Amino acid sequence: MMFGQLPLLKQLKAADSGERRDDVIAGVITAILLVPQGMAYALLAGLPAETGLYAAIVPPLLYALLGTSRSLAVGPVAVAALMVASALDQHAGTDMSARTTGAMILAAETGLILLLMGALRAGTLVSFISHPVISGFTTGAALLIMVGQLRHLLGVSGGSGSTVERLIALPAAFDSSNSVTLAYGAAALILLLLGRSPLVRLLQAIGVSDRSAALSSRAVPLIVIITLTTIAAILASDQRHAVAVVGTIPAGLPVLQTGFLFSGAWFELAPSALLIALIAYVESVSVAKALAARRRQRIDSNQELHALGAANLAAAFAGAMPVAGGFARSMVNFGAGARTQVAAIVTAGLVLLVTLFFTGWLYHLPDAVLAAIIIVAVAQLIDLNAIQSIWRYSRGDGVALLATAAGVLFAGVEAGLVLGVVLSLLIYLWRTGRPHIAVVGRVPGTEHFRNILRHQVAQLPHVLFIRPDENLYFANCPAVEEFILNRISDAGEIHHLVLVMTAVSHVDGTGLELLDSLEHDLASAGITLHMAEVKGPVMDRLKKTHLGKALLPARIFLSTEHAWEQLASAEARLRQKQERYDTWII
Amino acid sequence: MMFGQLPLLKQLKAADSGERRDDVIAGVITAILLVPQGMAYALLAGLPAETGLYAAIVPPLLYALLGTSRSLAVGPVAVAALMVASALDQHAGTDMSARTTGAMILAAETGLILLLMGALRAGTLVSFISHPVISGFTTGAALLIMVGQLRHLLGVSGGSGSTVERLIALPAAFDSSNSVTLAYGAAALILLLLGRSPLVRLLQAIGVSDRSAALSSRAVPLIVIITLTTIAAILASDQRHAVAVVGTIPAGLPVLQTGFLFSGAWFELAPSALLIALIAYVESVSVAKALAARRRQRIDSNQELHALGAANLAAAFAGAMPVAGGFARSMVNFGAGARTQVAAIVTAGLVLLVTLFFTGWLYHLPDAVLAAIIIVAVAQLIDLNAIQSIWRYSRGDGVALLATAAGVLFAGVEAGLVLGVVLSLLIYLWRTGRPHIAVVGRVPGTEHFRNILRHQVAQLPHVLFIRPDENLYFANCPAVEEFILNRISDAGEIHHLVLVMTAVSHVDGTGLELLDSLEHDLASAGITLHMAEVKGPVMDRLKKTHLGKALLPARIFLSTEHAWEQLASAEARLRQKQERYDTWII
Repeated sequence: MMFGQLPLLKQLKAADSGERRDDVIAGVITAILLVPQGMAYALLAGLPAETGLYAAIVPPLLYALLGTSRSLAVGPVAVAALMVASALDQHAGTDMSARTTGAMILAAETGLILLLMGALRAGTLVSFISHPVISGFTTGAALLIMVGQLRHLLGVSGGSGSTVERLIALPAAFDSSNSVTLAYGAAALILLLLGRSPLVRLLQAIGVSDRSAALSSRAVPLIVIITLTTIAAILASDQRHAVAVVGTIPAGLPVLQTGFLFSGAWFELAPSALLIALIAYVESVSVAKALAARRRQRIDSNQELHALGAANLAAAFAGAMPVAGGFARSMVNFGAGARTQVAAIVTAGLVLLVTLFFTGWLYHLPDAVLAAIIIVAVAQLIDLNAIQSIWRYSRGDGVALLATAAGVLFAGVEAGLVLGVVLSLLIYLWRTGRPHIAVVGRVPGTEHFRNILRHQVAQLPHVLFIRPDENLYFANCPAVEEFILNRISDAGEIHHLVLVMTAVSHVDGTGLELLDSLEHDLASAGITLHMAEVKGPVMDRLKKTHLGKALLPARIFLSTEHAWEQLASAEARLRQKQERYDTWII
Repeated sequence: MMFGQLPLLKQLKAADSGERRDDVIAGVITAILLVPQGMAYALLAGLPAETGLYAAIVPPLLYALLGTSRSLAVGPVAVAALMVASALDQHAGTDMSARTTGAMILAAETGLILLLMGALRAGTLVSFISHPVISGFTTGAALLIMVGQLRHLLGVSGGSGSTVERLIALPAAFDSSNSVTLAYGAAALILLLLGRSPLVRLLQAIGVSDRSAALSSRAVPLIVIITLTTIAAILASDQRHAVAVVGTIPAGLPVLQTGFLFSGAWFELAPSALLIALIAYVESVSVAKALAARRRQRIDSNQELHALGAANLAAAFAGAMPVAGGFARSMVNFGAGARTQVAAIVTAGLVLLVTLFFTGWLYHLPDAVLAAIIIVAVAQLIDLNAIQSIWRYSRGDGVALLATAAGVLFAGVEAGLVLGVVLSLLIYLWRTGRPHIAVVGRVPGTEHFRNILRHQVAQLPHVLFIRPDENLYFANCPAVEEFILNRISDAGEIHHLVLVMTAVSHVDGTGLELLDSLEHDLASAGITLHMAEVKGPVMDRLKKTHLGKALLPARIFLSTEHAWEQLASAEARLRQKQERYDTWII
């Protein structure tokens, strides 16, 4: 890509000074959210808090330069953090140095995989992850994260084992020694929840403008952190009020890391990195597309692969964790008025300032407060309306969604995702394996043919028009054959069968054998097989086969109407010979 | 099922005394083939020879009573024997008592699985195994069996390891001490091959009737066995002419076995049994259907599950191995004139006579002769014509076929089968993920709409008719969206987009979101989305959605023709307003 074609420069050319001011405000608001989230997601991944801060500085700058979304907020995200935690738990255990190196390897591999997908223009690969699976995955991950954070909120130790085991263990582990932690956690949770719509409505009620009310609400997490950290710092010397805190965060710029390049863990972490890359890409692009649609902008999926790939590679060399476009933070950024990626540059700059000068002050930030921030943030990922509407629209999709969520919750993030993808493929195959097939007749006075069960249509005596509403392929050949033979045996005396091929876009080898044996079986029963409206690509292949050559001269009609007319007159000639006449209309 | 409804009794009611005679002749011919094959397949499975004979006595009687095919020859078959060998190698090693018990468990489990599939009417499950996969599996299995038999033919020991290792090891293992074995093997092979078409043509040339020539050819295996076994028996006392022989086969009736019921191996053998059940069912039903079609008879797939299930359960209690309908033997049975399952009863009776009175004589039957019989039998399973025509018709099917064959040959029977099934599903998804989509126009003077790239059709100015030739589902939504948006940006000024839904039989949740966002994006660009020819089942679902309600009053047309007329007059009114006129015909 030429330098002049950088997406950021294109965005800037189109922007005016009013948009510049909006960008700065949005950048500040997003930074207020990002500092605690960055640390919180690092702890969620089982990494030092600074890993999350570094992930919030360097990668967003790369994305700002290369990405095509104007308001996507790239940085540490909850779901990727959870996947990193799961990968590191398996491969590095509790050794913090191995975990940090592992996180960098995962970021580097995620970046390389995304760049490779971009080079191969393989972005459509992720279309195998259907929306219901993504929805179920996000919901399951959010619930899993919330369960995991409960122990920080309650101040109990332990917390390994399955979701169910952890939930059961909680009440037993909780005793009065945890009441201080619980107080911080509960206070943070309540203040954060009050700071959302209740605060906005209160401010609106006392006459504050909608926009100011919304912006004030964004500042609540910062106020909560400042207040509770100050209290914790004041009470720190008193052992009775001790609480687990973030502790020392090294001050200063992220330093170029290269040690991870020589680690032996590249191979074993690769499968996890592949899943992280897929999920990071899917989450980022779907958020980016949703936001772009609201302002009639377009997202170039392939350029997104390059931008996210570069951002993740940068994360690795900055000693950070894998990054993606976050759902909640991007919505905040967009809502606060971000017009271009300048907002992201402002955000990164502010996070850098915090890292340079305020890490000492963050020492006393209680873990329970970060847990509350995580819980409130991921709660937004559970979209009950979407789940309900998916369930109502399609039971199969609903099952895939719930199975994915349950899989993530009870069998783990990676197993849940794989389960969801496989299940949604099987559901699709199961569905096309039992296709809708219609006997059609002519809508009187038109050239249109419709299902005899749904419309008032005419049929020709001794001629059956059957329309299989699916490709003819191995999984549905038995069902199609059974339907056709049953209709023929139900229909009394039949001379001609016309297959209306409007919905058949592909006939595979098994489908061809089905047509072949059908032609043979029908011929032996005195029934002639015809086809109508065979699509171009199907015809191209059929022409080359024995069957195609047999049917081609006279038994494949351009339209169902042609077939109707030809067979009607053929039947009329037959009747004249037999000197009898019967016609019936259904 | 009432006793009077037994398929066998129905067959007998319809038969006359001429057919009775044909059945007896066919039964004798098939028995001549079955005795050596039964023993050979038992050795192929790594089991005592009598296991194969027992499998040829009791199970065919059950199938004869319950099966709906009149000429299917049920008993030990090569492919199932190979799968049994593979399962037993893993689970029982070389311990012959554990192998025999394992074979009975496999037969029992195969029977139970088939009966369960019958009870659930789940016979269509096997449609997930496509014809190309079956063809590839059979070809791979046949080649694998032939490679495995080479060592018996050459008289070398060993023979474990991969296919390639075994082929490489052969020349090294062969030395002059094996020349006697090789002489028997080569003699058997040459005589068996000469006894096929060369003998038939010779007999025809000297004036023997076609039918007699064919029947004589069937007797060749028996003559080869009698001749070579007699020679081996005469030379047995001479150490220089020693050759590996079948050895002692216990004489007498198969005895009711129940010991296997209490074995601990049921659980670990179950996955293998599932694959054996699927393959046994697929092979049996496809052979049965092919033969039934030639005489215009019908096969009830579900009743076949009951019959094959019962036959396999009987095999277990008779101390035998899993059974299926064999391809080659059924063709012989059919060719020899079998009209009903009475032929199978005659065959079973003759095998029983051999088991009762001739096992002593079979002691001197050389292993190399049985190997030659196996090689000649399985060579018929490799259908090069079918492979060639599948490859020519569809490259995807061809790849699935060859990959399955290669998988069986180099990674093992079970891995090859699973590989083939997964691959054929992925190929189908990949294909429907990049669907054919056509811009259509009206064939002048008709109500028919065809691809503008293939036909001389008219288009309306400012109106685009697009026909996606595939269900709208998660795997192809990105491709469909990209096609539509590209066509719109190529087309200049567009006011209306009509999606012609003739080929869309299903819209899943992701497809619905695609349509939703398309409607939204197009509306913001001043383009109205319409649909035409929406199928009943799709309409039923769409009606319940937000999008359906928005489109329903005026923007979903019964036919593309209606859409054309309405939009043409809407455009005409617009032009009258703008007092300009343009029309173009492509």
